[in-house]
Amino acid sequence: MTSTNGLICFTNCLLPLEDGSLVRKDLWIDERRGVVLDAQRTFFSKKQRPAREIDMQGNIVSPGFLDIQINGAYGFDFSVYESEEAYREGLNTVSEKIVETGVTSLVPTLITQDKALYPTILPLLRPFTHPQGATLLGWHAEGPFLQLAKRGAHAPAFLRSAPEGFASFEAVYGASNLAIAEDWLMEGNAVGVRIITAAPEIDGVMDAVSALGERGIVYSIGHSIATTDIATEAVRRGARLITHLFNAMPLLHHRDPSIIGLLGASPHLVSSFTPLAPSSPASPVRPAHASARTKTKAQSEAFDEHDTPPQTPLLAAVHAAAKVPRLGLHLEKGQVADMAFQRPYYELIVDGIHSHPNSVRLAYNAYPEGCILITDAMKILDPHLKDGVHEWRDGKRFVKEGVKLYLEGTDTLAGSVVTLDTCVRNFSRFTGCSLGEAIKCATVNPAKCLGIENSKGTLRPGADADLVVLSRRGDVLSTWIRGKEVWKKS
Amino acid sequence: MTSTNGLICFTNCLLPLEDGSLVRKDLWIDERRGVVLDAQRTFFSKKQRPAREIDMQGNIVSPGFLDIQINGAYGFDFSVYESEEAYREGLNTVSEKIVETGVTSLVPTLITQDKALYPTILPLLRPFTHPQGATLLGWHAEGPFLQLAKRGAHAPAFLRSAPEGFASFEAVYGASNLAIAEDWLMEGNAVGVRIITAAPEIDGVMDAVSALGERGIVYSIGHSIATTDIATEAVRRGARLITHLFNAMPLLHHRDPSIIGLLGASPHLVSSFTPLAPSSPASPVRPAHASARTKTKAQSEAFDEHDTPPQTPLLAAVHAAAKVPRLGLHLEKGQVADMAFQRPYYELIVDGIHSHPNSVRLAYNAYPEGCILITDAMKILDPHLKDGVHEWRDGKRFVKEGVKLYLEGTDTLAGSVVTLDTCVRNFSRFTGCSLGEAIKCATVNPAKCLGIENSKGTLRPGADADLVVLSRRGDVLSTWIRGKEVWKKS
Repeated sequence: MTSTNGLICFTNCLLPLEDGSLVRKDLWIDERRGVVLDAQRTFFSKKQRPAREIDMQGNIVSPGFLDIQINGAYGFDFSVYESEEAYREGLNTVSEKIVETGVTSLVPTLITQDKALYPTILPLLRPFTHPQGATLLGWHAEGPFLQLAKRGAHAPAFLRSAPEGFASFEAVYGASNLAIAEDWLMEGNAVGVRIITAAPEIDGVMDAVSALGERGIVYSIGHSIATTDIATEAVRRGARLITHLFNAMPLLHHRDPSIIGLLGASPHLVSSFTPLAPSSPASPVRPAHASARTKTKAQSEAFDEHDTPPQTPLLAAVHAAAKVPRLGLHLEKGQVADMAFQRPYYELIVDGIHSHPNSVRLAYNAYPEGCILITDAMKILDPHLKDGVHEWRDGKRFVKEGVKLYLEGTDTLAGSVVTLDTCVRNFSRFTGCSLGEAIKCATVNPAKCLGIENSKGTLRPGADADLVVLSRRGDVLSTWIRGKEVWKKS
Repeated sequence: MTSTNGLICFTNCLLPLEDGSLVRKDLWIDERRGVVLDAQRTFFSKKQRPAREIDMQGNIVSPGFLDIQINGAYGFDFSVYESEEAYREGLNTVSEKIVETGVTSLVPTLITQDKALYPTILPLLRPFTHPQGATLLGWHAEGPFLQLAKRGAHAPAFLRSAPEGFASFEAVYGASNLAIAEDWLMEGNAVGVRIITAAPEIDGVMDAVSALGERGIVYSIGHSIATTDIATEAVRRGARLITHLFNAMPLLHHRDPSIIGLLGASPHLVSSFTPLAPSSPASPVRPAHASARTKTKAQSEAFDEHDTPPQTPLLAAVHAAAKVPRLGLHLEKGQVADMAFQRPYYELIVDGIHSHPNSVRLAYNAYPEGCILITDAMKILDPHLKDGVHEWRDGKRFVKEGVKLYLEGTDTLAGSVVTLDTCVRNFSRFTGCSLGEAIKCATVNPAKCLGIENSKGTLRPGADADLVVLSRRGDVLSTWIRGKEVWKKS
């Protein structure tokens, strides 16, 4: 059923607002243009009323979910290339099927590859819209600039450093893929990169961070043993994200809280006490980076709380500050803040396995605005798949038990098989936050991280009418792509 | 100068409210009775006006600070007994001198002793008021029921288990010291115990937790390698505090976040998913505790995120919950909460050395209402002491460098020499919270933890007029004990 004037009004529904609240309000969309409408403007200025009205029976009409880290699904692995035809077919399959999980946009993740394979796969991963399926927003390159000691499932032989800084990134991903794109379009744009995960302590990575940021590319800290000072410097230079928080990074040590500690980083302190050299993409600050690398070795050895704490420059500055006027002390919040310093977003896999509920709640309470839910799912993701043994690759086999996935014959976790709608429900349950607040972490937050919140992840007028209809318990009832219903719960 | 009718009005000042705000308001006290007055009631009902008015010149009139963990100061160590006379003199010295740091009440901490020494020292540590000095509120026994692997500076030979549960506690601390006190008075009461730090995984400790709570004694988790499940069970049984958070406990592991993870523990989850046996002080649940002890061994070995995660009962319950009705899921906050479960308060040493500012902010943001600032100071605490080498004990010597204290010839931290007023200023700077919010963590929060907020740590009518006057930068200008100025900045 279509609307004669193309306008649809969803009524008797709850809309998630960008502050995490759920409000009883109608939503108008234009199914022909596939966008969300400003109801007041459409009605009062254009004198138009929707020809079709849909009673949502009190359910939630949410922006569709964004999954910014997903390795594959429905049997297809974004990191396995057999032929162009098979690869394109795999992308199509994922796009069409994943809408049942409420996901309407995703950033396929390419794990560390042989350098020779990037030019083959990356062009296939450019932004891609499907009339009946989820939008592929471009690619998330996880590697190859990762820390060997935190490589996880990444192949050691393919890990690299970036001795030439940004030029090393261009050499791997292709200069055209990293070109400055005036118009950061979803489609028809040659530039497909959205996110690059790299370890900031790896030779040359820090020097590339500013250049990535200038190009609108999200630089994400991950698979890293960065000290607090290195991680902080990466954020000052523009790091916007932390890849799968808690996993593949040092534990939170109270005296050098490293990457996880960025959730508690304060712009007050950074501006007042950190005498870090100014960052400049044109002339990277080599000495600071060199000393950072030196400290990484110390960091890689675990130290006990009764041992000597590492004396980081930041701490030294804090101590020195006892002797200088207390610039950072203030009666009101936000007086002496370095506005250039914004805590990064952070990804959480909320399958109840990768992090304990208490860890999830601790992170979320520490920095709710930065939370992004991801699946980090493997190709085996498929809510219809039965528990049991499944083929992976290189002769290895998975054992799937509910949302738990491990290597056959071992107890080693082999990634996630959780769906994003399950993560949203888990998250509300684990943290005690409302369903609206959990939805925010799968919609507005990832969209803002990518800088596409005017078109994806929100109900702003003009945004794509990619929607997921949820029950009050968070179960997916139907999914809409640019104004058309493409999946409905049977 | 005294007031002819005993009433004093502090005017032109900022008062810290219990919600962390600072408001421009007068404060009335009765210097004869030494208590805070209800100004309206005094004026309208009793038709009285203060005979003396003091212009505070815009400064802050705060409740005096409470330090609930302090090992000594001004050369006196609460854990070293030479003679009763010397000990009493030491207590007097600390009480008189410490007011210059804004502290008007403290809970002297007794570290692990030879069992034979407790009956000698504890009677001397009963609540003690001094007309010119800070009130000693009773004692904080840190040990001897501690985990060997996290003993810190505690003597291994004196550590014990509690095979008889609460009876073992009575055997060490003395039954009369743990008697149920109908009237929990500050003075003249034979019961001096306020806080006991013990490791919940130590044999018999868990069985004693409920009994301690019934007696109004704060049971605090510390020097422990408790798993998440053990720590959670301790809180369910009444643990109210975490001793020096981050120090002498496992690092936050995302899959078993242990004691630190309690800051993210949710009453929603606990009630919905944790099938823990009901707690009963009369018939302790031995099997649960026994299995808890078994798991402790696994916890004591560090595990990497790529290893098999420990399958705790809580996580197993979370997974099982996928198959049962989702009781915990809710649109509104607080629907399915176990009201018996309250996250414990936690102590932080904010000297810029024991925990990095990012760790401090992370903890505070995760659970601001639970934060308590402590000094955990050594006998060397004395703001007038010069940097250099100082005698400790057993022939060992300290090196003091600013607020950093380490053993001569090593880099090993030897405790804290920070003053509580410095901690308050640091805390505001590290977290970006207002000075009023930092003050709260040194006044209302510790008072509530101890259950004495009607007499200490607040400006409630009837509370003791123990006050500290602070500049807008948090510097101590004067200190008042029960309505009398006992110290003034020269």
